[in-house]
Amino acid sequence: MAVLSMIAVNGDRLNASITRLAKIGRLPNGNICRLAFTPEDLQARYLVQQWMVEAGMAVRTDAAGNMIGTYAGRKASAPALATGSHIDTVPSGGEYDGTLGVLAGIEVVRVLRENNLHLHHPVEVIVFTDEESSMIGCQAMAGMVKPKDDAMAERLERVGGNWDEIATAKRTKENVAAFIELHVEQGAVLERSQKQIGIVQGVVGMLRQAISITGQANHAGTTPMNARQDALVAAAQIVLFVQAIALKMPSQPVATVGFLTVAPNAVNIVPGQVELTVDMRDLSQACLDEMKELLDRELEAIATHTRTQITVSPILVVEPTPAAALVQQAIEKTCQQVALTYCHLPSRAGHDALEIGRFTDMGMIFVPSQAGVSHSGEEYTSPEQCIQGANILLNTLLQLDEIYP
Amino acid sequence: MAVLSMIAVNGDRLNASITRLAKIGRLPNGNICRLAFTPEDLQARYLVQQWMVEAGMAVRTDAAGNMIGTYAGRKASAPALATGSHIDTVPSGGEYDGTLGVLAGIEVVRVLRENNLHLHHPVEVIVFTDEESSMIGCQAMAGMVKPKDDAMAERLERVGGNWDEIATAKRTKENVAAFIELHVEQGAVLERSQKQIGIVQGVVGMLRQAISITGQANHAGTTPMNARQDALVAAAQIVLFVQAIALKMPSQPVATVGFLTVAPNAVNIVPGQVELTVDMRDLSQACLDEMKELLDRELEAIATHTRTQITVSPILVVEPTPAAALVQQAIEKTCQQVALTYCHLPSRAGHDALEIGRFTDMGMIFVPSQAGVSHSGEEYTSPEQCIQGANILLNTLLQLDEIYP
Repeated sequence: MAVLSMIAVNGDRLNASITRLAKIGRLPNGNICRLAFTPEDLQARYLVQQWMVEAGMAVRTDAAGNMIGTYAGRKASAPALATGSHIDTVPSGGEYDGTLGVLAGIEVVRVLRENNLHLHHPVEVIVFTDEESSMIGCQAMAGMVKPKDDAMAERLERVGGNWDEIATAKRTKENVAAFIELHVEQGAVLERSQKQIGIVQGVVGMLRQAISITGQANHAGTTPMNARQDALVAAAQIVLFVQAIALKMPSQPVATVGFLTVAPNAVNIVPGQVELTVDMRDLSQACLDEMKELLDRELEAIATHTRTQITVSPILVVEPTPAAALVQQAIEKTCQQVALTYCHLPSRAGHDALEIGRFTDMGMIFVPSQAGVSHSGEEYTSPEQCIQGANILLNTLLQLDEIYP
Repeated sequence: MAVLSMIAVNGDRLNASITRLAKIGRLPNGNICRLAFTPEDLQARYLVQQWMVEAGMAVRTDAAGNMIGTYAGRKASAPALATGSHIDTVPSGGEYDGTLGVLAGIEVVRVLRENNLHLHHPVEVIVFTDEESSMIGCQAMAGMVKPKDDAMAERLERVGGNWDEIATAKRTKENVAAFIELHVEQGAVLERSQKQIGIVQGVVGMLRQAISITGQANHAGTTPMNARQDALVAAAQIVLFVQAIALKMPSQPVATVGFLTVAPNAVNIVPGQVELTVDMRDLSQACLDEMKELLDRELEAIATHTRTQITVSPILVVEPTPAAALVQQAIEKTCQQVALTYCHLPSRAGHDALEIGRFTDMGMIFVPSQAGVSHSGEEYTSPEQCIQGANILLNTLLQLDEIYP
């Protein structure tokens, strides 16, 4: 049987490393606080670096503070097959977000070494700097260098980076043939559809806009309904329209009004001013463009019939990054070989792979998150699910080694 | 001609008294701050009391601090025909709200005296205590006595009241045959319909409710649209429904969501919790009851299809007070006699007449407010409009004197 001929990770060792790393930054309430650049981040980097070295990797830190472990390939000039993720957390995070991808990568290398396997390509395990906030690690690797920021320069120095040479962190398709990231889903699509593995179609693009509505604050008793310029009535129409456009698009985008404030915000005053935000995400830039256009047109109509002024300003624009077809196919084939159920889905959260996919072939493997919970101490993926994900990562890398020149 | 046979107020004297009173509490920015119980309130009471005495009235202060000027009638045992309003303001008020009703009442008595006219009934001009906040003056007169409040007892003492005897402030139909209040509209109905006088049909009742919506805060990227429990989407539906029920009721009630807060209120988080208020006002209790029932039913439907929990708690319930038909007819006849244009409309703001109408016949005369602005230094009613209102008050009182036994 195909399943028995595959090599497999040491599941106990993988899960022991997850449990060990989770001790660093653990708060009394069970959440983990391991913010980038803090002593906890450094303590975690130190431990992970030790594990990389023990697994037979050469470890270096680039100018953006990314820690890169390299397991040599048979062909010295070949570009790397890279994997990895991040070990920093949000202020109250969990055990799996980021760390699973890094520790599974190290476990993969351990297994290769135990089996005396050297691939044609070098295998890299990358710990990216500050994924949860600035994303400076993966952005620098993609060649996106921002204007000098003294505070960030100081932080980078703490983790072995060097702002003045940050351009040297840039990589290309010439030296990274493909990047594949294992990550917990942070959503509940796999759990609801009862699939073991998610083959990511790409990381969604994002359009965030701030909308400001100016009506006329007025006495809620003496102002007849037809004489009002109620900013909150206009805002309510926007909230429902934003939901409606997301629901009607065939690609199943998401769109959210998450922030909304009212002024003067008093029980007996017709609202004169509302500020709100719209966040729209989809794999397809065409879909994002269409939603923006529909929204713009609707805002004009709402402004006219509510007699309010509505202005829109962009907050954030991130282009979607599709996953490479080659990598998706390799993951799918691996799932079939090891007999794990799977489905294709977009990643609707940002990841290091979003930036790396801008310069080389990218793919992501998702494993389920219990109840979709993430960025919380409640975040949970079972030991078995972690092992399944790591085995897909291992065998997909073996396949990619055959595919890429 | 009928118009010429009517007696009229001294318009210059009336407007001079409005201008004089407006000096008390005037802020550098032009707004007036004459809060009840403050030195400014006392200074204004002192001046108004002087004017009452000069106009030939006997002045007393009741246990609720209401200042009552009485111009004797021909029949000693007859109940009074009362008028008046208040001279306290909101923290940044204008010249006309309340004061017009008091000063026009005094001007009416001046004219009666100059014409050697004594009615069958005594005429009372009442300055009610603290209309803009506690409404303790008119409430005490209507017999609504609240549990003892030491702070309020101390305040009452400052203006000559006495909490321990507040029950003695209560009046009845036996000693007040009717009460008629002249007031600026504080809305723009008269201005828009280009009418000179508003005949108030009653003071609207009010139902204020707090609504709390509990959904599930979640990642705005990874939570598919159909898996959300978005409290703001539920809230938006409520905002629009509240507007829609007010628009569809034939009695033209008003209904407002003036206060709304979202939690966690972040651009990238599906809202988990929304708190909002609903304020509904109408002349008819049946209409208020129907709107409440329709809203309750809709809230259940919204909770079901948005998968949120919605709870409602009452904040304030005020029953409407209709104006007496007799008084409305007398005002209307007067308008016809002096050839002023008029319309019938509800008062959608609270007034002293709201409480006085609970125990005796009540009526209100409105004059236009420029652009509907009130509770602001921008509040404006022209000298001519003030005179028109005072003349309607004067001649309506003469008519009521014939009507009431």
